[in-house]
Amino acid sequence: MNAEDSGTTVLIHDPTLRDGQHAVRHQLSAAALRGYAEAADAAGIPVVEVGHGNGLGASSLQVGRAAVGDDLMLSTVREALRHSKMGVFLLPGWGTSDDLRKALAHGADIVRIGVHCTETSLAERHLGFLRDAGAEAHCVLMMSHMATPAELADHAARAVGYGARAVGIMDSSGHFLPHDVGERIGAIVAAVGTGVPVIFHGHDNLGMAVANSVAAAEAGATIIDGCARGFGAGAGNTQLEVLVPVLERMGFATGIDLYGLLDAAEFAERELMPAPPVTGSLSIVSGLAGVFSGFKHQVLEEAGRAGVDPRDVFFELGRRQAIAGQEDLIVDVVAELAARTGETAA
Amino acid sequence: MNAEDSGTTVLIHDPTLRDGQHAVRHQLSAAALRGYAEAADAAGIPVVEVGHGNGLGASSLQVGRAAVGDDLMLSTVREALRHSKMGVFLLPGWGTSDDLRKALAHGADIVRIGVHCTETSLAERHLGFLRDAGAEAHCVLMMSHMATPAELADHAARAVGYGARAVGIMDSSGHFLPHDVGERIGAIVAAVGTGVPVIFHGHDNLGMAVANSVAAAEAGATIIDGCARGFGAGAGNTQLEVLVPVLERMGFATGIDLYGLLDAAEFAERELMPAPPVTGSLSIVSGLAGVFSGFKHQVLEEAGRAGVDPRDVFFELGRRQAIAGQEDLIVDVVAELAARTGETAA
Repeated sequence: MNAEDSGTTVLIHDPTLRDGQHAVRHQLSAAALRGYAEAADAAGIPVVEVGHGNGLGASSLQVGRAAVGDDLMLSTVREALRHSKMGVFLLPGWGTSDDLRKALAHGADIVRIGVHCTETSLAERHLGFLRDAGAEAHCVLMMSHMATPAELADHAARAVGYGARAVGIMDSSGHFLPHDVGERIGAIVAAVGTGVPVIFHGHDNLGMAVANSVAAAEAGATIIDGCARGFGAGAGNTQLEVLVPVLERMGFATGIDLYGLLDAAEFAERELMPAPPVTGSLSIVSGLAGVFSGFKHQVLEEAGRAGVDPRDVFFELGRRQAIAGQEDLIVDVVAELAARTGETAA
Repeated sequence: MNAEDSGTTVLIHDPTLRDGQHAVRHQLSAAALRGYAEAADAAGIPVVEVGHGNGLGASSLQVGRAAVGDDLMLSTVREALRHSKMGVFLLPGWGTSDDLRKALAHGADIVRIGVHCTETSLAERHLGFLRDAGAEAHCVLMMSHMATPAELADHAARAVGYGARAVGIMDSSGHFLPHDVGERIGAIVAAVGTGVPVIFHGHDNLGMAVANSVAAAEAGATIIDGCARGFGAGAGNTQLEVLVPVLERMGFATGIDLYGLLDAAEFAERELMPAPPVTGSLSIVSGLAGVFSGFKHQVLEEAGRAGVDPRDVFFELGRRQAIAGQEDLIVDVVAELAARTGETAA
């Protein structure tokens, strides 16, 4: 696709106030939510997504209680937005249909359902509910490096069949290089047809979040995610205020005001985060290994106790295709690596 | 070039201890230099460059006095390196032939001469001196976005004629996108022939430093620069410990040990820098405008005094093709923008 000829519009979807929550253990205050939402609205960012990092209904002892409950989060951001749409996120199992009803009652414009890339059927009931409610439902396939382009295309088409009006992929562990993204987005665009917008959401573990997002747009994705200063866990998400002017320079239209966007990012750096994301060693290793970076704390703890290199643990978890929810594997892998080390030393 | 078929070797050149100095006003201690050089050597990084940020002989009141003089810097790093080569950098005008003699006496293996991209003739005398001394002389064309691919190819060929054994470009203001880099490196490779290694040095203002470096390698560059954690002024340089595994994944060989490299980066984050680089608003704007980010402090000061938006100043400096040494232009531009604002308000 030649953006300069077609003047293709890319719709920017900003999950700073949802995915960014992971970097601060879901502790964003109502004042911080309001301030950023106002700044994003003033900049003309089309969609502002808000919530607990794991989405609607996920605030819990297990993954962390949010400082602000779903009701107050949604009403605060709703009030702050004059032009931007409000987005919410739901992981089936964490959130329920009741959470969806509540979000719609609060005026959520776009509801994203996230599923593991080969488990689209888990989204069927929620997507059907949203379709019947007349709501704008989107579906994102997470950890998408764990499926082939053909599998992703198949699952994307299924999601559309269930009622998703847009569908796409998250590079949850920041594993992709640009040609990987182009290939996968191309396959999905071909499978769902031109009437269904395709989504890309990147992470920066291998320094490729902006380049991957550009590759996605060139392959036909028209909804691209980015967070202010890349706010997110580990290496962070695609840095929004870098992505937007790069897309514009390449001929894509976003409708966003550059100075307003830079102002919003400065607000975010000052008021939302202790410091912008840094790409540290374990973020790089988890990106290379294709492993969920949320394993980091538990890997460090278990590996430290057993005297095993946490980087070896990540690479081994990658070989075993570990996914979120399989934290027990960490214990097994550490024990096995510790035994191997003992053999080598003996 | 298909790296996976050819197993192309990329020689990594690490200017953490020279270009990184800009981020800490040239205040790296001898202990910090020694520690990082030892870690880089242990990781198998082929070339470790050291010096004042502006190179040999540049320590001065005007651009900042280094905490450690050239003699102690060079002897400290020389002692720390067992396998890696020691590189030095010289900007004609800042450094002299005496500085080159001193560096060679200290055992510098590679001497880089940096010139503005269309001023290669300024390097003629130094490159000739180094050729006659039998030293390994390289030449880099700075602010290379200000010249066309054909001009860069012409100047690269001239540098080879003067005695440079390798030649290449620096994306000094972080302005390039990957296709820009591929086009320019391709033109230079064609102009200098296969016997002369071609160099690329990136900056991350537009989030493209790693992607640009990969594009350079794919276009035939075989010497690529990167700094630990991207250590450097503003948005920083290409993040070395991300670049290396990405190049390896794409089939290029670097000979560097990944864990050793990650350890060196952790040492650098802990001992060299107050914090890793962040891509802030003015870094993004200077990258978009193609302006030397070293103007930042003076732009902020002059713009603040006159009540002008510093981002407007950067974009106007970009239109006027301002380069380092033309700081007087900042005052002119601020005065003109202030006058325009006055007219609008009146």
